[in-house]
Amino acid sequence: MLVEHTDVPPGMTYRQAARKVVAMCVSDFAAKGVRPDSFMVSLGLRKGVTQRQVEELSLGFRDAGREWRVGLVGGDTNEARELVIDCAMMGYAEKVVTRKGASPGDLLVVTGAFGLTAAGLKILTAGAKGSRAFARAATKSVLEPTPDLELGVALAPFLTSAMDSSDGLARSIHTLARASGVGFELDRLPVGTGVRGFAASNGLDADRLVLEGGEEYVIVGTVRRGRLRAAQIAAAKAGGMLTPIGTATSRPGKVVLETNDGARPIRDSGWTHLRGR
Amino acid sequence: MLVEHTDVPPGMTYRQAARKVVAMCVSDFAAKGVRPDSFMVSLGLRKGVTQRQVEELSLGFRDAGREWRVGLVGGDTNEARELVIDCAMMGYAEKVVTRKGASPGDLLVVTGAFGLTAAGLKILTAGAKGSRAFARAATKSVLEPTPDLELGVALAPFLTSAMDSSDGLARSIHTLARASGVGFELDRLPVGTGVRGFAASNGLDADRLVLEGGEEYVIVGTVRRGRLRAAQIAAAKAGGMLTPIGTATSRPGKVVLETNDGARPIRDSGWTHLRGR
Repeated sequence: MLVEHTDVPPGMTYRQAARKVVAMCVSDFAAKGVRPDSFMVSLGLRKGVTQRQVEELSLGFRDAGREWRVGLVGGDTNEARELVIDCAMMGYAEKVVTRKGASPGDLLVVTGAFGLTAAGLKILTAGAKGSRAFARAATKSVLEPTPDLELGVALAPFLTSAMDSSDGLARSIHTLARASGVGFELDRLPVGTGVRGFAASNGLDADRLVLEGGEEYVIVGTVRRGRLRAAQIAAAKAGGMLTPIGTATSRPGKVVLETNDGARPIRDSGWTHLRGR
Repeated sequence: MLVEHTDVPPGMTYRQAARKVVAMCVSDFAAKGVRPDSFMVSLGLRKGVTQRQVEELSLGFRDAGREWRVGLVGGDTNEARELVIDCAMMGYAEKVVTRKGASPGDLLVVTGAFGLTAAGLKILTAGAKGSRAFARAATKSVLEPTPDLELGVALAPFLTSAMDSSDGLARSIHTLARASGVGFELDRLPVGTGVRGFAASNGLDADRLVLEGGEEYVIVGTVRRGRLRAAQIAAAKAGGMLTPIGTATSRPGKVVLETNDGARPIRDSGWTHLRGR
């Protein structure tokens, strides 16, 4: 469910918002290794909505339908005090990757870098500045998120657990830890290109951008150590990549980052609905 | 999609609202003859929502799940400026009854009477008064709508077209007429018990309560003339009833009511989102 005041930052068009709500579902499907077939959309429209805005929404659904080859097969329309779009998606899979299959010794892996989306949001909402190229990439990651469905489907046979990082990297890792009854020891943070520089020049904490951002729509999961190589080849064939960032441990719920100064705990922080950060 | 300011009248509890949004989907399934299997729910909750209210919602979903034997299998939670509940339902059928199968000569049928829900809404929102028994029945029809799933499933083999009357009887009949390329000649209006008396004592137009109410969640459809008897027996076996109220004609889009003074046109009026009535 996409809600205007929570999920539509300044600068996002209705077309992008419509595409985004489908992307949110596609991202969930990608992380579970499920190929979607079709989707339904319920719209809550403001009373003053214009013909143009409704057309923008329909273009966004068309964009999404073409991009991920899913058909819009139904839905509902209603009146609401702000734009609300709910998407329900249907699809098929032989195996669904859950959150609870990680075992101690498994490698923690991600399919992308983090921090860019949080930086983009700071640029759009808080006046932060970056180089032109960085700002373009960062805001694009917010306005036009691109979950990698083919990558998710290709990785499903290899992942012992996975989810998409819609509420941030730290929250995702803690969620997998709780669901699987393991802990995680990270040996590195998957910091996006340019994020440290952007953070420094705007007086922001780069680690927080990386750990607490959210809405990256990147897959966070685990693979058996001996399967990493095969999983990475499958990822490359699907046009993506898979980066190990740590190891599952037998200390349930404990998530730490190994640094030169020793192990630093990573808190279960990120976006919490009805509370914020 | 249920939206608080549009779909939750004064006097409706959160538990009833949650049950109602599932009832809205069940009603669609009943009219199509599809047995639902499971549903997903997306919630938009106000920032000040209480633990108690969230529990009420969960009780309403449980009520609905038990009543129509459907499982709540997933969903999403978000923050919104008013309560928004979106329900997506999945189910199975060998045949789906559409809106476009009516032929001239088919009988127009309904599975219930009309006017009670509109009366209930007048009682809840506009201070209208009725006898205690009538008021109880009328407000109950608003607060706890009861689509008849078993009846819909039993009738599916007989219906040539059908839909549920969520936007009112007149709108439903016109929609079937447009979709099927026929007209309809009504020989009677399916007026609910006590509705004429209630209308008279409150200075309201009974025909409008019957034709333009909405949210009755009654099935409006068509059957071949020679199949009426069999359809009525199937309805009775399912614990319901099927009442013929008119005939499909070969005058596309023309909907009239035969009266002692001749044919009176029935307008395509009812609830229109973003405009009201």
